Amino acid sequence: MSDERIRLGHGSGGRLTHELIEGLFLPKLDNPVLRELADAAVVGLGDHRFAFTTDAHVVSPLEFPGGDIGRLAVNGTINDVAVSGARPVALSAAFILEEGLEIALLERVATSVADAAREAGVPVVTGDTKVVERGSADGMFITTTGVGVFDPGRSLCGDPIVSGDRILVSGPVGDHGVTIMAQRGGIRLEGDLRSDTAPVHDLVRDLLQASDGVKRLRDPTRGGVATVLCEIAAGAGRAVRIVEETVPVRPPVRAACDILGLDPLYVACEGRVVAVVSEREAPVARAALSRHPLGEGAAEIGEVREGPAGRVTARTRIGGERIVDMLSGDQLPRIC
Amino acid sequence: MSDERIRLGHGSGGRLTHELIEGLFLPKLDNPVLRELADAAVVGLGDHRFAFTTDAHVVSPLEFPGGDIGRLAVNGTINDVAVSGARPVALSAAFILEEGLEIALLERVATSVADAAREAGVPVVTGDTKVVERGSADGMFITTTGVGVFDPGRSLCGDPIVSGDRILVSGPVGDHGVTIMAQRGGIRLEGDLRSDTAPVHDLVRDLLQASDGVKRLRDPTRGGVATVLCEIAAGAGRAVRIVEETVPVRPPVRAACDILGLDPLYVACEGRVVAVVSEREAPVARAALSRHPLGEGAAEIGEVREGPAGRVTARTRIGGERIVDMLSGDQLPRIC
Repeated sequence: MSDERIRLGHGSGGRLTHELIEGLFLPKLDNPVLRELADAAVVGLGDHRFAFTTDAHVVSPLEFPGGDIGRLAVNGTINDVAVSGARPVALSAAFILEEGLEIALLERVATSVADAAREAGVPVVTGDTKVVERGSADGMFITTTGVGVFDPGRSLCGDPIVSGDRILVSGPVGDHGVTIMAQRGGIRLEGDLRSDTAPVHDLVRDLLQASDGVKRLRDPTRGGVATVLCEIAAGAGRAVRIVEETVPVRPPVRAACDILGLDPLYVACEGRVVAVVSEREAPVARAALSRHPLGEGAAEIGEVREGPAGRVTARTRIGGERIVDMLSGDQLPRIC
Repeated sequence: MSDERIRLGHGSGGRLTHELIEGLFLPKLDNPVLRELADAAVVGLGDHRFAFTTDAHVVSPLEFPGGDIGRLAVNGTINDVAVSGARPVALSAAFILEEGLEIALLERVATSVADAAREAGVPVVTGDTKVVERGSADGMFITTTGVGVFDPGRSLCGDPIVSGDRILVSGPVGDHGVTIMAQRGGIRLEGDLRSDTAPVHDLVRDLLQASDGVKRLRDPTRGGVATVLCEIAAGAGRAVRIVEETVPVRPPVRAACDILGLDPLYVACEGRVVAVVSEREAPVARAALSRHPLGEGAAEIGEVREGPAGRVTARTRIGGERIVDMLSGDQLPRIC
């Protein structure tokens, strides 16, 4: 791809991002830990293992209903650590600021970073600040990195994903992405649209303590639930089938998606978890999710099946069957 | 400072950066680890401690004699871990790409990241890629984060800094910063100007194994040796005096500094270490530095003295005495 240029879609989290990672980064940087391409890497450290994850946040606008880039950055990194099964213990935050940025805005964002870290109980222990000339960045970017530890007695079960495993989602999907898109387009919509940004580490802790049948957890951000399911199916060498009407979507989110021409399955969540759970444990796991405030509205949305590796299908509301592909193209840039 | 705006100097690593960190970030994010403001945070993890550090890299131009943003990012983070006394074990890399960036350039930089990581023996185990619209970034930014472990038998000695301690530098200063400034200005200079970007973790290991008198190590990047000495003096509650003619500066670097109007003491190094060593151990430490290829040209440049906390002075070549203040103002933006 040497004669080509970077497109917005390379950052969408969907197919072009995968092509960039698998075609360009992986062959060069190849090592066993990176090759896993998990939300967090798991690194051995003497007798211990720790989880390690990083995310650059470039969301536009910087402030939006329900949060801002600071809160999003802290929660996003906590969530990437949490879905690996680890307990987040420390964060770093590196700011790239554009010359001319209002310091009052930076103060609000720094307050959000501090508040989110305090609420989650995960301190920001190190950081960096760089400034670039006016026009060389868009206000502010924040890269957060997190470290987590694996506590005994609460972890992913380690069994392979097999046919019959259930797919759970911890609550309604699409709130974050549609809030950003509506805000960016200056579209005023009826109803309460706000980002669902939240730290899911306590929810994950409760889930893993309640059930030993949780095989995989994912954080459906860029690319949404659809892209995460495609990745899960491909990784497991199996197919996934979901039932569209069981996927929880709040009415204002559905209405906004209709207006904006978006499929909620592809719209980013920032406080949700997708879980693959054994058939036997699915009711226990769903109940555990529902008991936590962030798991209100948890639902079973589908199951793993034999079939072509990586194929995801959805039974539609009118009873048909459609292919759910990975997000492709340039939709939804700068959603996180 | 709420009615103000961010200036380039807020990212210089000098006085304005300190004001931003101490006036805005610290009061909000305050916690005991962050308050240390070390190159790397030291975090407890069960019975273990680990070092954790992050740096956003925004160097312009992206490629320069002796390296590029990828090599700089990997080495910079390894060095921040190393000067805490820890052994770097894992890195993350988060890329922010501008739409329209040539993929061939990204490939060269990714190759540099991979080469630098392999040469240093520290793998990049996790990463992220985001893309922003044309004009919303300047080509490419890379934020690297590193984790290190503290090995028994090689650490900073922990004694307080006292009068008589010696200041060592591991080699000639200013090569990186002056190379970037010359390249950016399109200035063709006589002689061999190239960045000194290099990973100093093996040099630090050798130093700490050879001497138990090493009290403090710093990485003189943004703000150069002068700013690091001001920080050391302030932290120790003492004064520092250096002898200008003992500070090693390669002739082409000195010539370029003269032309560009720069003081080499303020120009960033990316492969050097400043060490505070007990008077007794200074010869051993200097010899240990000199035995390593990256320590060629190591020199003792001054000492700690009683005096106002944070005051750094230099005996000039003509025998006078001048104050060496922290870098202030907007000089040398986007040097790393």
